[in-house]
Amino acid sequence: MSLLVVGSVAFDAIETPFGKVDRALGGAATYFSVAASYFTHVNLVGVVGEDFTPKDAAIFRGRRIDITGLERAPGKTFFWAGRYGQDLNDRVTLATELNVFANFNPRLPPAYRGCSYVFLANIDPKLQRAVLKQVSRRPKLVALDTMNYWIERTPAELRDTLKHTQVLMINDAETRQLATENNLMRAAGKIFRMGPSTLVIKRGEYGAMMVHDRSVFSVPGFPLWEVHDPTGAGDSFAGGFMGYLASTGRVNDRTLRQAMVYGSVMGSFAVEGFGLDRLRRLKRAEISQRARHFWRLTQFRL
Amino acid sequence: MSLLVVGSVAFDAIETPFGKVDRALGGAATYFSVAASYFTHVNLVGVVGEDFTPKDAAIFRGRRIDITGLERAPGKTFFWAGRYGQDLNDRVTLATELNVFANFNPRLPPAYRGCSYVFLANIDPKLQRAVLKQVSRRPKLVALDTMNYWIERTPAELRDTLKHTQVLMINDAETRQLATENNLMRAAGKIFRMGPSTLVIKRGEYGAMMVHDRSVFSVPGFPLWEVHDPTGAGDSFAGGFMGYLASTGRVNDRTLRQAMVYGSVMGSFAVEGFGLDRLRRLKRAEISQRARHFWRLTQFRL
Repeated sequence: MSLLVVGSVAFDAIETPFGKVDRALGGAATYFSVAASYFTHVNLVGVVGEDFTPKDAAIFRGRRIDITGLERAPGKTFFWAGRYGQDLNDRVTLATELNVFANFNPRLPPAYRGCSYVFLANIDPKLQRAVLKQVSRRPKLVALDTMNYWIERTPAELRDTLKHTQVLMINDAETRQLATENNLMRAAGKIFRMGPSTLVIKRGEYGAMMVHDRSVFSVPGFPLWEVHDPTGAGDSFAGGFMGYLASTGRVNDRTLRQAMVYGSVMGSFAVEGFGLDRLRRLKRAEISQRARHFWRLTQFRL
Repeated sequence: MSLLVVGSVAFDAIETPFGKVDRALGGAATYFSVAASYFTHVNLVGVVGEDFTPKDAAIFRGRRIDITGLERAPGKTFFWAGRYGQDLNDRVTLATELNVFANFNPRLPPAYRGCSYVFLANIDPKLQRAVLKQVSRRPKLVALDTMNYWIERTPAELRDTLKHTQVLMINDAETRQLATENNLMRAAGKIFRMGPSTLVIKRGEYGAMMVHDRSVFSVPGFPLWEVHDPTGAGDSFAGGFMGYLASTGRVNDRTLRQAMVYGSVMGSFAVEGFGLDRLRRLKRAEISQRARHFWRLTQFRL
């Protein structure tokens, strides 16, 4: 089924102990779409500036990604610069230039409005809500990412958007902050009262955990021999998760667990290369093979 | 089969957001033995002072724990005091008084010398080695815990002891430090060249990971509604792990994975209560039930 994503498309300058790039296409919606496109058709809503060239758009071509909803605005594309230390969990943000993103007002092309699966990447909750209002019928599944900035600065708007969200995808710290509760299980209970029925907690190299109803599912981080760049891991996870769910057309405990695994598969590939390097060159067989690796990594018989 | 543990027996003063105790029996060998005793017979080697009363020894009675090897020495028992913050990962050590432990020289009673499973808790690697020399025949499995102090201060002695060790059980940071390598898979490769054939990485609330040969197994942390005191979690994990292995008498990929789960089960119970409160009152059925919970927590079908 059709999948809609709204979020940032950006140029990233990234430095890790393994290399450096000055201008690589990135942003949440970019990582999400590329990851999800291995599973289903994706409709992208975002904004870029005049510096976005046909060469930059090449990443979307030849994939099941519709960029009719990628608006071109006067000015420069959103720019982010960051540096990772030897411990890749240590990240310093060197620059965040919103540019055209500062006045982003998402507009859905008519062909996007019937989407059944919607992913609201980490942007102003007001804009996330505005996107949902443009969807013509109630989507089958709305998933949302957010961050400490919105939890602190726009709590009322975030609460309003959460009422219309089924899956909340955030990290440990954001979970604790949003629920004002340190224990993650209790925090999940409080978050369910805000609207979502499923909480996906992203834990970086430690994997991810999903809580819904009375069921909890945990998937570990994939033990990688090469981690070159953690940028985009969470958004690639979300892309694999939502892409897989949209491809099955069913949302139940079994498909949600599978989605957690495919999300983890895409996140693990994303960090193996710089920027989108690894993610964009994947073969479907590599994805299936890594999913089976996750199986071997976690299975036991009592 | 018989299981031997050498390590600290201590009095702990613990403060967490959920309570406070001034003098609770603790120490690595104590947590280990109590956890392991649910699976097999344990022979304990350690030292206590004159302040150790028959009431303190009660924790070992009525269990399959032999304390013939628990030496009484003139002076006071090892004392440790620590305080945990709201985030239970933040621990401040307030006092470490070695007391009788400073001159500890482990001596194995004759009945202990034929043990096939040996756990060397976190003590001076010289003492760990001295214990191994007293074991009459080559044990089936030697597992070892250590910490940054020994990795930094006595690297040669630690390397010597590691040569005689099959399973190394340490945390992420210790793994990286010992191998001088940030990537855990590469670190495992370097550690295997030091002697151990299996590396168990303990990751607290995130669970644990085992690497051996070409196989990797990960088990997540158990999602708990109540965490009252993290003290002893790692030693309880080790007790469940080694206790289970000794009870089966077989060491292979299947039993090692099961041991990881039973280790996690015991670690998860340990933190639910203050000190040994929860661990000492377990029923065998609760252990089996939680192992099945771990199964439901991690299983998926592709």
